[in-house]
Amino acid sequence: MSAAAAPAGGPACPLCAADGGTLVWRGCGLRVIHAAEEAGFPAFYRVVWEAHVAEFSDLQAAERQRCMEAVALVERVLRERLQPTKVNLAALGNLVPHLHWHVVARFDWDSHFPAPIWAPPQRAAAAARLEGLRAALPALHQALRERLAQWAQAA
Amino acid sequence: MSAAAAPAGGPACPLCAADGGTLVWRGCGLRVIHAAEEAGFPAFYRVVWEAHVAEFSDLQAAERQRCMEAVALVERVLRERLQPTKVNLAALGNLVPHLHWHVVARFDWDSHFPAPIWAPPQRAAAAARLEGLRAALPALHQALRERLAQWAQAA
Repeated sequence: MSAAAAPAGGPACPLCAADGGTLVWRGCGLRVIHAAEEAGFPAFYRVVWEAHVAEFSDLQAAERQRCMEAVALVERVLRERLQPTKVNLAALGNLVPHLHWHVVARFDWDSHFPAPIWAPPQRAAAAARLEGLRAALPALHQALRERLAQWAQAA
Repeated sequence: MSAAAAPAGGPACPLCAADGGTLVWRGCGLRVIHAAEEAGFPAFYRVVWEAHVAEFSDLQAAERQRCMEAVALVERVLRERLQPTKVNLAALGNLVPHLHWHVVARFDWDSHFPAPIWAPPQRAAAAARLEGLRAALPALHQALRERLAQWAQAA
């Protein structure tokens, strides 16, 4: 596969064809989704650029700024609400080359910490910790919606 | 480890104590380093924020913009010079919580593609391909230095 073989937008691209997770907020040319829980990371979000572009540097400078301010806002709300040990940010897109930023709250007790979420697990995460995190998500999503709406209004 | 246990700047932090790789360029409050080759990824760069902050959202908005414009510029030069299948961007920092962005050129022939570089390898990369990539690095570094200097001058 060469860069030129990246799927175009439209039905061929899963992030053009569907939201790609539970929609939390949409506006300003991007959307924030809560990812279907993968491998024990309940606080896993994605900031998806609505238009189909493969690489971050395909955006114009003002678009990059808008995109990363949304990423930083999601990160900030995760920090305020969950007090994670660390937040992980990544735009990979090897499988789905439609620009999307992973924003993941990491905890020293999670299954992979301090390794990246894509590395082999280091332990089983305690079920009670995961449950506690899941219980915090509805209020977190409400906070995300409010803060993103404020941000969009100020922009 | 809690967030509060993240090492402060100074000798306790490896990215405060040393460059963390081969210095390519330094300016505008950040540096670009070529990472010591890890696991068969010769085109592996890091944009390191010079001041000790743990999270992207610890920066001010103008600092985030400057940081990400440097990341986008490194990405763009990698794309122009190497024609990678994809560029991967990530700020993780679980082990070294001093803000640094991984910028990695990925190729469909590399050892892990399309998986993240932190996942288990999928194949051995062909030695000739890796050699070809390494041969392109001196000119790439020169291009990075020129483009980053132009960018800094325009800023």
